[in-house]
Amino acid sequence: MRTAVLNEPGELAVEERPRPDPAPDEVLVAVGEVGICGSDLHYYEHGRIGDYVVESPLILGHESAGEVVEVGERVTDLEVGDRVALEPGVPCRRCAHCKRGEYNLCPDVTFMATPPDDGAFAEYVAWPADFAYRLPDEVSVREGALCEPLSVGVHVARRGDIGVGDSVLVTGAGPIGLLTMEAARAAGATEIVVSDVVEGKLRRAEERGADATVDPREEDLGDAVARHTGGEGADVVVEASGAESAIAGSLDAVRRGGTVVFVGLADEAEVPLDVLDIVDNELDVRGSFRYRNTYPAAIELLADGAVDAAGLVDFEADLSDVDDAFRRAMDPDTVKGMVTVGR
Amino acid sequence: MRTAVLNEPGELAVEERPRPDPAPDEVLVAVGEVGICGSDLHYYEHGRIGDYVVESPLILGHESAGEVVEVGERVTDLEVGDRVALEPGVPCRRCAHCKRGEYNLCPDVTFMATPPDDGAFAEYVAWPADFAYRLPDEVSVREGALCEPLSVGVHVARRGDIGVGDSVLVTGAGPIGLLTMEAARAAGATEIVVSDVVEGKLRRAEERGADATVDPREEDLGDAVARHTGGEGADVVVEASGAESAIAGSLDAVRRGGTVVFVGLADEAEVPLDVLDIVDNELDVRGSFRYRNTYPAAIELLADGAVDAAGLVDFEADLSDVDDAFRRAMDPDTVKGMVTVGR
Amino acid sequence: MRTAVLNEPGELAVEERPRPDPAPDEVLVAVGEVGICGSDLHYYEHGRIGDYVVESPLILGHESAGEVVEVGERVTDLEVGDRVALEPGVPCRRCAHCKRGEYNLCPDVTFMATPPDDGAFAEYVAWPADFAYRLPDEVSVREGALCEPLSVGVHVARRGDIGVGDSVLVTGAGPIGLLTMEAARAAGATEIVVSDVVEGKLRRAEERGADATVDPREEDLGDAVARHTGGEGADVVVEASGAESAIAGSLDAVRRGGTVVFVGLADEAEVPLDVLDIVDNELDVRGSFRYRNTYPAAIELLADGAVDAAGLVDFEADLSDVDDAFRRAMDPDTVKGMVTVGR
Amino acid sequence: MRTAVLNEPGELAVEERPRPDPAPDEVLVAVGEVGICGSDLHYYEHGRIGDYVVESPLILGHESAGEVVEVGERVTDLEVGDRVALEPGVPCRRCAHCKRGEYNLCPDVTFMATPPDDGAFAEYVAWPADFAYRLPDEVSVREGALCEPLSVGVHVARRGDIGVGDSVLVTGAGPIGLLTMEAARAAGATEIVVSDVVEGKLRRAEERGADATVDPREEDLGDAVARHTGGEGADVVVEASGAESAIAGSLDAVRRGGTVVFVGLADEAEVPLDVLDIVDNELDVRGSFRYRNTYPAAIELLADGAVDAAGLVDFEADLSDVDDAFRRAMDPDTVKGMVTVGR
Repeated sequence: MRTAVLNEPGELAVEERPRPDPAPDEVLVAVGEVGICGSDLHYYEHGRIGDYVVESPLILGHESAGEVVEVGERVTDLEVGDRVALEPGVPCRRCAHCKRGEYNLCPDVTFMATPPDDGAFAEYVAWPADFAYRLPDEVSVREGALCEPLSVGVHVARRGDIGVGDSVLVTGAGPIGLLTMEAARAAGATEIVVSDVVEGKLRRAEERGADATVDPREEDLGDAVARHTGGEGADVVVEASGAESAIAGSLDAVRRGGTVVFVGLADEAEVPLDVLDIVDNELDVRGSFRYRNTYPAAIELLADGAVDAAGLVDFEADLSDVDDAFRRAMDPDTVKGMVTVGR
Repeated sequence: MRTAVLNEPGELAVEERPRPDPAPDEVLVAVGEVGICGSDLHYYEHGRIGDYVVESPLILGHESAGEVVEVGERVTDLEVGDRVALEPGVPCRRCAHCKRGEYNLCPDVTFMATPPDDGAFAEYVAWPADFAYRLPDEVSVREGALCEPLSVGVHVARRGDIGVGDSVLVTGAGPIGLLTMEAARAAGATEIVVSDVVEGKLRRAEERGADATVDPREEDLGDAVARHTGGEGADVVVEASGAESAIAGSLDAVRRGGTVVFVGLADEAEVPLDVLDIVDNELDVRGSFRYRNTYPAAIELLADGAVDAAGLVDFEADLSDVDDAFRRAMDPDTVKGMVTVGR
Repeated sequence: MRTAVLNEPGELAVEERPRPDPAPDEVLVAVGEVGICGSDLHYYEHGRIGDYVVESPLILGHESAGEVVEVGERVTDLEVGDRVALEPGVPCRRCAHCKRGEYNLCPDVTFMATPPDDGAFAEYVAWPADFAYRLPDEVSVREGALCEPLSVGVHVARRGDIGVGDSVLVTGAGPIGLLTMEAARAAGATEIVVSDVVEGKLRRAEERGADATVDPREEDLGDAVARHTGGEGADVVVEASGAESAIAGSLDAVRRGGTVVFVGLADEAEVPLDVLDIVDNELDVRGSFRYRNTYPAAIELLADGAVDAAGLVDFEADLSDVDDAFRRAMDPDTVKGMVTVGR
Repeated sequence: MRTAVLNEPGELAVEERPRPDPAPDEVLVAVGEVGICGSDLHYYEHGRIGDYVVESPLILGHESAGEVVEVGERVTDLEVGDRVALEPGVPCRRCAHCKRGEYNLCPDVTFMATPPDDGAFAEYVAWPADFAYRLPDEVSVREGALCEPLSVGVHVARRGDIGVGDSVLVTGAGPIGLLTMEAARAAGATEIVVSDVVEGKLRRAEERGADATVDPREEDLGDAVARHTGGEGADVVVEASGAESAIAGSLDAVRRGGTVVFVGLADEAEVPLDVLDIVDNELDVRGSFRYRNTYPAAIELLADGAVDAAGLVDFEADLSDVDDAFRRAMDPDTVKGMVTVGR
């Protein structure tokens, strides 16, 4: 079968690999579409993300959906022909994290396209049936693939306890920021402010329903949010940019007793934070890492039309053009590129 | 000023009363509209609700909004001319419940139209400024009055921890059931089933966005909900009818580990419940009483157009026709009648 | 190996069975001690518990601990010679409940001594390594076996959100009631009242640290609890008796806004409950089923001496005398009998 | 009446002031004992804490208890002769924070000994009756005064969701650290490690029940905690020192998915924190500010003997020697000094 393999930084090649066989608890999925994620681009450019280093050829891609073409002997919930979204991280199921249901924190997770585990830029993937979620008719394979970034947003909304009537600031209007905005809206947020430094992304946030947008180079973030929240600050701030200024500024934009969720990956690990602010205003500052138990909710939101994931897509490219697609995806104005494998 | 006074059961008279003066922390509000609630009708018909007995003439009405015409000397947040919704229960602010923020459980609450406290069927009401919530331009006085029943629904959604992707059954499609349905949707519920025994109310629930409706005399409630939730049962059941069969049936319709919220007032205090079911399925059964900290959220939902409260209204009548209005409101097909006082 | 098999109601025989081999993820444990639980007695007497019917010979016992004598090839956390407590329910690890961490609600659980799954009255048990918890030196094998009922108590304390300064009523002073009392104390409860109708059990509760005891035939439960809680009612009521009067009375003994946890198994499934009370007092009524993620905490409590589980034991008997031991365990004054298998 | 007034930094004088009269909702309390808090010392030394500047003479002291000598006309819960602990912060009761029950975040709080509000180093204080908590016979006036720092610890335990079986690291063994340690134990923590750089304080922590102590200059904090928690890190870290190294180190000592509570006041507002760590390990970092709804629990803990607050006291001095007492209290080895006013 054809796959897109990262052999070394900047060199993404379409290569043949043997088609996998599903284990008894697995399904074999003919991959339909795969989104290009920032982490794919990071591996492509740098060959590593922090401690994760690409040491041998790696199949990239972890935002995927497709069609079941074979089922393992113990699989009872899925059938050949079912269209499914694949949750890319399969945990050990045995550690204390897994037993507590926080399986996204499992240290022994197998995660697509994270060295040394191969990803989904491949014609076929064999995957545990319980991490393959059947798509109803209303949800396309493309949307199924986008359940992955949407899951990040749904998990952020849960981590932030976003509820009815909340005001929310989202810093960073990339795919995670935009989908978090929609997840926050779905969870009941009534005032959502989005900030970014790319003009086009702010316009996109507005088109997709932001109540207000801010370019923090033009107006202080805290001031802007205060203006939109009756002087109080936001109930919840979601930091989805990874920019040091936004990370530090998040503490100024949140209301007393409010919650800040960090989901953006900072370039610099260490960022000076106003700890007195955290104490005096009794803030909750919460990290949000990937997601857990989000796929069913993400699929329901898409089936209901409550979230427009497909509208994020700027372009699609065939697997044979994957190298070109990666170059286009690196344009700062691109929100999301899709690679079609089968369909 | 003119008021509508219940002198004895069935006898509602328009009478003159002295116009109140606002205390230093109060505003004087020229009442615009007042909704007729089931509890108003119950006092009208029976002269009592449980232990609350109308022993002297009582001004009814507690779903109200109007315009500020005078402000007490210590009031800083409101001005003459502001349109406001009035939260009808003002707690003692000093007991353990109040200090914990569960002020709806304060035993010393002053609650409009609950003996011996007068209500809002009056040209003017003097009310603590912090329980009068300014309405933005997008929210009408009528909607302001309907923040009261909407608050019941918002509180139920919070009590039930309804979140993104949840399936919900609401039993009873009266005003509380219908507004709870909308609050649940606003909180992220993606599959909402509504049950009632009145055909017109089921149609109304469908028109207002229910995913499915059930008449429990035609199909078993548990079976119907299972059919709409992949066999699992609802994540959350909201019992808003007070009917004994619905109360008992709620435990069959909820999924294992799910939550049942009781908000409907049962005619019979004691209802046989399957306690083994509560234990074996580890259910959460939660009462929901009035509301707390809901008005700002309710107003935001209305300003956003996320909830259509005004669409519930079947008729309006002038304060001078209040007795007639009460008789119309007792028709089982009526969802909500409004009394206009000033405007 | 020797086992104690229930062939039909009332007939418990010591029989030889083949010694199991551990699967790759399992350990083989030489069982040391096994507690006799009420459910063992129920199967012994009636041959069934609700829908669970003993249709073929069943090895009873699920409160067990012992020593690892062999480890499967993939086991890395345990070694031969480790003393371990065995958590008797192993879930499917794949369903939505398991993924959410509420694995006690998994419908496909394998649970010791629940038909058709055999239990621990056996010289050897092969068991998944991640449900075998190493005991530190401070914790005896007997205490390890009693981690099972203690886990029920720890789970109840969590389900009831029992915290520092809470007042708690526990109805029923059997092993679950007494261990729940200790778990509640460990969680911060400062006033604990215990009720029972057996005089000896009330004395035992007092000896083990209850602040007060009540015989509900002598004083109304609600009145007694009010007397000990400044008239308020208990923050949390734990119903651990299964008696209909205690179930109904629990709602009178809890404070407004408080929590009732049902853990006792009612003889009658349907119990009349005051639903208006649940609504008006905004109660939380929560079922508690078995336990999840409790063994590490139970072991820590025992290691610290914070809970005296071994003090519950009234007698011990050898596996060869198991039938006699069951008859002694059925005496109403018995709290806990232990069967020694190896040691 | 005599009072201890800070006229300018370093100058604390005993001065006569008029005895206050209680308002209708207040009690007049003859102050018995008052603890010397770090904030009192900070005002004494520097004349300010952050934005709070002593601009006119200020009566210091906010850890106080005494005896009711007069009650306002609306007070019903207290009587002359009752011994009471005074909660020093009285909120506005009207803002959104107060209504939500998070009254410690009320921006209009009156807080003893925080400019411009006078404190409790005075023979008499008039105080709202609902912030004066009756002490049972088992709790001394001294312990009543120490309910204030104990409340800080109880609030931290709640903010950190410390529960049964948790492992906890407390950095800083001053009065807050030590009382947090005891509150954590009362809440169910089974493994508590305490760190400090003062040898005497570590010994004191050990004497008071710490399972282990660490001097972070001798052993890396993360390594030490890993050693005591099976390599996992602590479930909860409480940073009670304000030291920059401890603040940064807290993120290394907590387990994946764990919680860090900041309660110590940093000298430097901005501390570099590893934000990637917060995201990747999905940490919760929570500020804890003063306390709310803690006095009843603190009193219950003291009445039960679950916390030894009086054992913290190093010395007592009469109000006439208050200046000398402050100088003794500034010794780094002192944990707590008390000023006796009446008794």
